[in-house]
Amino acid sequence: MKKFVNDPVNFVPEMLEGLALANPDTLKYEPKYNLIYRPNMPSNDKVSIIQGSGSGHEPAHVMAVGRGMLDAACPGNVFSAPPVEYCYETIKMMNSEKGVLYLVNNYQGDRMGWDMAKEMAEAEGINVKVVVIDDDVAVQDSTHTVGRRGVAGNFFVIKACGAAAEKGASIDDLVALGERVNKQVRTMGVALTSCTPPAKGEPIFSLGEDEIEVGVGIHGEPGRRRDKMKTADKIVSEMFDAVYTDLPFQSGDRVALMINGLGGTPVSELYLLYRKAALLCQEKGLTVVRNYVNEYCTSLEMAGASLTLLKLDDELEELLAAPAEVPIRVF
Amino acid sequence: MKKFVNDPVNFVPEMLEGLALANPDTLKYEPKYNLIYRPNMPSNDKVSIIQGSGSGHEPAHVMAVGRGMLDAACPGNVFSAPPVEYCYETIKMMNSEKGVLYLVNNYQGDRMGWDMAKEMAEAEGINVKVVVIDDDVAVQDSTHTVGRRGVAGNFFVIKACGAAAEKGASIDDLVALGERVNKQVRTMGVALTSCTPPAKGEPIFSLGEDEIEVGVGIHGEPGRRRDKMKTADKIVSEMFDAVYTDLPFQSGDRVALMINGLGGTPVSELYLLYRKAALLCQEKGLTVVRNYVNEYCTSLEMAGASLTLLKLDDELEELLAAPAEVPIRVF
Repeated sequence: MKKFVNDPVNFVPEMLEGLALANPDTLKYEPKYNLIYRPNMPSNDKVSIIQGSGSGHEPAHVMAVGRGMLDAACPGNVFSAPPVEYCYETIKMMNSEKGVLYLVNNYQGDRMGWDMAKEMAEAEGINVKVVVIDDDVAVQDSTHTVGRRGVAGNFFVIKACGAAAEKGASIDDLVALGERVNKQVRTMGVALTSCTPPAKGEPIFSLGEDEIEVGVGIHGEPGRRRDKMKTADKIVSEMFDAVYTDLPFQSGDRVALMINGLGGTPVSELYLLYRKAALLCQEKGLTVVRNYVNEYCTSLEMAGASLTLLKLDDELEELLAAPAEVPIRVF
Repeated sequence: MKKFVNDPVNFVPEMLEGLALANPDTLKYEPKYNLIYRPNMPSNDKVSIIQGSGSGHEPAHVMAVGRGMLDAACPGNVFSAPPVEYCYETIKMMNSEKGVLYLVNNYQGDRMGWDMAKEMAEAEGINVKVVVIDDDVAVQDSTHTVGRRGVAGNFFVIKACGAAAEKGASIDDLVALGERVNKQVRTMGVALTSCTPPAKGEPIFSLGEDEIEVGVGIHGEPGRRRDKMKTADKIVSEMFDAVYTDLPFQSGDRVALMINGLGGTPVSELYLLYRKAALLCQEKGLTVVRNYVNEYCTSLEMAGASLTLLKLDDELEELLAAPAEVPIRVF
């Protein structure tokens, strides 16, 4: 294993400490619960929006904490759900009179932890609601889920709910909004390589020199099938068809189009993938109103990418365009 | 070779086409010269700022084209300098009454091409000037350079000159500014893996399972030495010491601190590196006024990172904080 790491046990805390050191004015860090949160939060003027999942998907979700995005995130270890205690303490620390909304990708471990924390918080009179994200079209059930998995489409739920919360939306409105975004967003990913969690020290699965995993999950879970390596355009076409036909999208739809890198794929290749995806949108009569070509939800250093389409309407367009702040600096 | 690519011959054009498709309002693309440029440029109200180097370093430099950054970039093939013709046509297309400034990293191929293009343009009466960047402290001369190499510190020259150009600075002021930034910025990088140019189809060098290249160049050129893999903190300490002692920086200095990923290293690891770098700055009495943890200048999918320190003053602080636009979207 060649990674930038000290003692693997400290991988997540040291990453979080670095994140906090890099953002002294906009992020606070509570090491006891792996908690990254916005200073001056919670506020009784807005619903608190929080998330916690396994680490290893950065920038999701600790680097999505900021104005107009998440108010707090409490990751577990790499590819491990946060402990119930972290979820519970995060809900309590972010308790607002307007309520606390947690967003959770559909993985059994994450959902169980958050559901228990919700019950515990409700017993103390805290108003807690949930939106579950399950945008991955690759497989119906999987090794880690009943039902579909939640992957990069989660970004759009965060962005829309984060923007609406800043405008003062009620918790019921935010639940309805988050569920609407989730219903309109679809994703599929392809892995070219595996990845190695620091504490495990070896790859989580293996792929032959000319093999790819079509429909891979963000923890390396099997997708639809192993396939032989093929051209970028053919890979994009398969991801696009899977996503496009699933909603289904229709000619005339306005969409957001995301090419998300899985961690080890350079941005040059992501734009090469975007090219074909944009041409397919043109062919199908979809208007790409906003696009996203970067890393949003990764699997450590896995080489690969996912394609996400979100069907837009006037309200969603406005929410996606609203100002926001995240730690990642591009200039 | 497992990469997202169609015909390797089209790797760069298809990436650029994707970039243009993703930014129809803010970027234009001239396929004849691999040219990415801002619409409505050149303007006689400002000096045009341009760059061109080998591809494979993205986001440098085509994804640094935008308001307050570069006005145009004309990359060559992967790790190959742009042909003289591209440089010459870029200068001509970006000709402004206030002049054209090209920024060039100190590599023989890049400098030769741009110098010839400059002479050709000057013969036509165009006012062209140059700033050479050579921020890499790793080696004095290298396989690709006489003198030091130009690497991620280039970002700060672009940002400062781009911001000053928007405010109407003259070309002579911009040359002085760019040279001042270059004199105050230092970088060193470490590679954990090699990388594979699409057209070559095999790694450009090889590293053993437990080896790293300390002081690697952005085309995989040898650095100071091969070393055994060690902890992240030890690697950061070595990069920091090399950079810190070179200027030298001094207790009380205000600095910008950059941890730049080389393409295949996930952002989680970059923040873990940032942690140690920030602690070393505290130890040495440096105040980190601005920080940068992301990919700015890469080597395809190479796993690795570089550390850059820039000594700041009031003017540079203001220029780094000035608004800018780049294609990379973080929310």
